Amino acid sequence: MNVEAYMNKLGQSAREASRLVAKSESGVKNKALLAMATALDNSRDALIAANEKDLENGRQNGLDAAMLDRLGLGHATIDGMIEGLRQVVALPDPVGSITDMNYRPSGIQVGKMRVPLGVIGIIYESRPNVTVEAASLCLKSGNATILRGGSEAIHSNQAVAECIRVGLKEAGLPAEAVQVVETTDREAVGQLITMPEFVDVIVPRGGKGLIERISRDAKVPVIKHLDGICHVYIDDQADRAKAVNIAINAKTHRYGTCNTMETLLIHVGVAKEVLGDLVDRYFAAGVELRGCEQTRALVPRVNEATESDWSTEYLAPVLSIKIVADIDEAMKHINLYGSHHTDAIVTENYTLSRRFLREVDSSSVVINASTRFADGFEYGLGAEIGISTDKIHARGPVGLEGLTSQKYVVLGDGHIRQ
Amino acid sequence: MNVEAYMNKLGQSAREASRLVAKSESGVKNKALLAMATALDNSRDALIAANEKDLENGRQNGLDAAMLDRLGLGHATIDGMIEGLRQVVALPDPVGSITDMNYRPSGIQVGKMRVPLGVIGIIYESRPNVTVEAASLCLKSGNATILRGGSEAIHSNQAVAECIRVGLKEAGLPAEAVQVVETTDREAVGQLITMPEFVDVIVPRGGKGLIERISRDAKVPVIKHLDGICHVYIDDQADRAKAVNIAINAKTHRYGTCNTMETLLIHVGVAKEVLGDLVDRYFAAGVELRGCEQTRALVPRVNEATESDWSTEYLAPVLSIKIVADIDEAMKHINLYGSHHTDAIVTENYTLSRRFLREVDSSSVVINASTRFADGFEYGLGAEIGISTDKIHARGPVGLEGLTSQKYVVLGDGHIRQ
Repeated sequence: MNVEAYMNKLGQSAREASRLVAKSESGVKNKALLAMATALDNSRDALIAANEKDLENGRQNGLDAAMLDRLGLGHATIDGMIEGLRQVVALPDPVGSITDMNYRPSGIQVGKMRVPLGVIGIIYESRPNVTVEAASLCLKSGNATILRGGSEAIHSNQAVAECIRVGLKEAGLPAEAVQVVETTDREAVGQLITMPEFVDVIVPRGGKGLIERISRDAKVPVIKHLDGICHVYIDDQADRAKAVNIAINAKTHRYGTCNTMETLLIHVGVAKEVLGDLVDRYFAAGVELRGCEQTRALVPRVNEATESDWSTEYLAPVLSIKIVADIDEAMKHINLYGSHHTDAIVTENYTLSRRFLREVDSSSVVINASTRFADGFEYGLGAEIGISTDKIHARGPVGLEGLTSQKYVVLGDGHIRQ
Repeated sequence: MNVEAYMNKLGQSAREASRLVAKSESGVKNKALLAMATALDNSRDALIAANEKDLENGRQNGLDAAMLDRLGLGHATIDGMIEGLRQVVALPDPVGSITDMNYRPSGIQVGKMRVPLGVIGIIYESRPNVTVEAASLCLKSGNATILRGGSEAIHSNQAVAECIRVGLKEAGLPAEAVQVVETTDREAVGQLITMPEFVDVIVPRGGKGLIERISRDAKVPVIKHLDGICHVYIDDQADRAKAVNIAINAKTHRYGTCNTMETLLIHVGVAKEVLGDLVDRYFAAGVELRGCEQTRALVPRVNEATESDWSTEYLAPVLSIKIVADIDEAMKHINLYGSHHTDAIVTENYTLSRRFLREVDSSSVVINASTRFADGFEYGLGAEIGISTDKIHARGPVGLEGLTSQKYVVLGDGHIRQ
């Protein structure tokens, strides 16, 4: 069977399975998720053996240490997958929830019912635990899933898929509710993102290159995460201790995450003191600093920032620093150079914090807290499929609700339109 | 200036204006809307004269009577536009509304703030009153708009645009908050739908051909309305009087609307009686009936329905009729041949109505009421920019809320991530 025919078959069977998953009761979905956890626990040897094949191939193909690290699947990763499944079981089922049901002047009642999107295609790289994470969130939200992992993880993903199938079967759900693409042919991705008749939305998880390519070529909606160029703006009315703690945490808590601060903006009125507090701590942590001219005039040890620094997501121990005249310059900088992901102000001023909240056009706008809080767990979504930098459908961390939509329900008693 | 440069300029200035509109207070936006109404009222002669030019050109270019009728802009249309503006003024402003603000275990507070999408591109045909309708909804929801009407209405649209500009100016809002494309060059549409840096979403309003073309070529999200192939299923436990009233109303109340029933499904157990009640009334109203074999066996006067009838949106006094074995066959037919727009069941059975509500995958699911209720006014949205047949972002009638998104707001007191 050629790739096109194979993907079409996958799509069609996913579409059919999606109708059964959509009407499944929460208890049945939870039973499947728990059975998957048991299957993973019972298959540790098989999982690790399959992963060893991928690692061996990876070593032969010259994958670097970081890639091999992400690809690895040991007991700790399996424990994490099992724990993740239990957490998803514990989350409330969003499907079928009816809100805003009100009588209208005509006498009909109108409300909204939360419903699954249908079939979700997930495209991801390396980490095999994404297979379980994505499958569990999609299943709990009543969707069928087609998962396409990286070719370097194909054996691991197939072994995980087998556990997922066991779980689905045990709960009486169709095996086609979660399907892992079995071919490593790259054409499979091209097919997956151009079958609007079978796939309702694509969620790509991976590097910016992958996501841009998919967004460009997709013929179905994409819930995507691009850059995380996050800012902290320290106002002249900031509490200095809070400002310093937040600026250190937002940069140094983790370097490779999308909600890490990449540019620090400081009000000119407090720049000298704040930089005095911060620079040594950043250097001690091994952070390279790149500053605007004013910054370098105050602290000559700081490297020069070029125009491109303001729009760079370092994902590394590098920080650009800019001194601004006021909140207006800060917000203008954020809205121009930022990626509309997560941006914070530190200030004790009520009016400025209120303005920042309204006028900064980012998926998360933060007052007096670290940008690092921007994720599904911290926000109480329980788990997330990703953080959307889109404005349409879902902005910011996307949990179960983001994998659903709402339809209108209308109740009458023989009502006709006059 | 070539079209590309012209559209880029429009886009860039819309993007800048969108930031000012986004933070405008409701009172300012309402002042602009009321001033537009006054300007329209004061410009009746100019509007009618401009429209006369379009009508004259239309007659010379051989537009048919229906097109000319839709293009016409007389005192009644102007009254309607003024009334529409007043209705939008009366609607609550969705922008800035914060919901679900809760303390998290970490001590931060997390909530969601409703925010404008940014810049909305509207592409429409003929009817000049859409210019005011779309502009007012986009403005009230805090968005900037670029409007591209049909070339056949260019003089009318420019005259309306002048009134919109007067209104914006009077309220101190930038003229670029609502811009009407001044060129009739078709390339302008191609540009408008491929500028993701300046345009956040496209709303096409017009025929299916236009919408399909735009969806195919757009590089920005499209909130679209495709077919309205709506069904009424009359169950064997339906109240006969309700069933007949609803079936007549859903078809004959208006023929050209998207929420008009196109296919009637009848349970085999009541088909004979129900058809006996309905057929003469449909014929009396001038409706052509096309039935399945079973239908024709009961009522030979009914024409033969072919496979293509089940997926045709007639928008005309034509109705296809199919007799089904039970609710399962009915729902299967609806989910397969329907357009996921609006579908109704008539039944007194509690369990079947509950199943229909959950299992029918349409933007509006209706029990014991006419499909004709599916619109923004009847649902209490106040006004609508269209009815979405998409699943992502907005499903069903799209009002002010559908023209917005939600960002996360996070309040802390110096909180850092542990």
